[in-house]
Amino acid sequence: MIGKKVWAIAEGYIPSGSTGPKPDFESHDTLCVLNTSDQTANLEVTIYFEDKDPVGPYKMSVPPQRTKHFRFNEFKDPEEVPRDTDYASKIVSDIPVVIQYTRLDSRQAENAIFTTIAYS
Amino acid sequence: MIGKKVWAIAEGYIPSGSTGPKPDFESHDTLCVLNTSDQTANLEVTIYFEDKDPVGPYKMSVPPQRTKHFRFNEFKDPEEVPRDTDYASKIVSDIPVVIQYTRLDSRQAENAIFTTIAYS
Amino acid sequence: MIGKKVWAIAEGYIPSGSTGPKPDFESHDTLCVLNTSDQTANLEVTIYFEDKDPVGPYKMSVPPQRTKHFRFNEFKDPEEVPRDTDYASKIVSDIPVVIQYTRLDSRQAENAIFTTIAYS
Amino acid sequence: MIGKKVWAIAEGYIPSGSTGPKPDFESHDTLCVLNTSDQTANLEVTIYFEDKDPVGPYKMSVPPQRTKHFRFNEFKDPEEVPRDTDYASKIVSDIPVVIQYTRLDSRQAENAIFTTIAYS
Repeated sequence: MIGKKVWAIAEGYIPSGSTGPKPDFESHDTLCVLNTSDQTANLEVTIYFEDKDPVGPYKMSVPPQRTKHFRFNEFKDPEEVPRDTDYASKIVSDIPVVIQYTRLDSRQAENAIFTTIAYS
Repeated sequence: MIGKKVWAIAEGYIPSGSTGPKPDFESHDTLCVLNTSDQTANLEVTIYFEDKDPVGPYKMSVPPQRTKHFRFNEFKDPEEVPRDTDYASKIVSDIPVVIQYTRLDSRQAENAIFTTIAYS
Repeated sequence: MIGKKVWAIAEGYIPSGSTGPKPDFESHDTLCVLNTSDQTANLEVTIYFEDKDPVGPYKMSVPPQRTKHFRFNEFKDPEEVPRDTDYASKIVSDIPVVIQYTRLDSRQAENAIFTTIAYS
Repeated sequence: MIGKKVWAIAEGYIPSGSTGPKPDFESHDTLCVLNTSDQTANLEVTIYFEDKDPVGPYKMSVPPQRTKHFRFNEFKDPEEVPRDTDYASKIVSDIPVVIQYTRLDSRQAENAIFTTIAYS
């Protein structure tokens, strides 16, 4: 069982524009979670903004021995993550998991991508 | 409260050229800061160069429970960060924060992006 | 001898499409391993999915004082890694190694790249 | 004085092709070093390959309170780093420094970039 329970990502921005067929080429921010344990991981994500109070928790779970790649674009409850807006996130899990953050930006004709292991 | 007080980024370069509408597609280096605590974080940033003395401190703050994405392009006091010049940065905060570094390079027709959690 | 024995990468996705001459511009996910020791490193890689049991171990080795850049695209035994599918990976080595993860995505006309040191 | 003395980068590849004016758009791998101390940092870099013995040490130094962004493309002594070849690197400094690794790949018409803090 590899990982940590508390993670943070200081970058976040979902471009409203995209080029190319959806869903593959829709601009997106992704929260990749790996749970190598034999228990379900229950996560609570809080989204931070520049000029308003944080929103959350967004609750999600990852079954034992599974990975889940959650798109911030698809977060719905308690509310959607606004487009074209700087944000950041904190993730708290009840068991150790590994978290990585990826963006695909297809606002211009060719897509651009980045990734980093989150901070723990 | 997740994070550290002292961070460093060894890469830094603000291209003078850009393609596409500003400010979204203006080439930029960004310092993303996440403050999950209940206190304001007061930061001092020092910029290092290849062939001259460091410049700083640039002072900035992040309110409690907020993120701020500062563009190095917009650093003004004590002086602007020169374009087309290699630099690096050290960030010292009075309380723990999480820092991530992102670039958007739009010198050529399509934008390119990268990100990494800073070193702490 | 620098490194760790257990590593994880929460991101993984091999696009089935590519633009440009192979093998250089074939879309690929790469597992870069550096073994600075004087012994062979024996690795076991497990691939995790969103909705089925993990697959592995994929066994590979890196001779002393060598690096190997393994493309996930070329993993064969026990089975190929499926295209256009989210996955993640855990890597266990019998001696300390350093692991980095890179993608080249050439689905659109111009290639996009990302990299990160894996989690350990 | 922030940093570590021993660092590693498991990825490395200098494309022989480039598009756009040199030196800005020449494809390159860069070793960014930040020395925040009051002493000169003396570094020894060793380059590892897939199928031959490591080459090095490449010796370089970073003055006190300075950053240096060394392009692997320009490493000359004891020998050039071959193009279109997978490699990795280990960096040993006599005092703590911070190391980050960046690539600009301009083989296709639009440039692609990536970065990561190195492993320490």
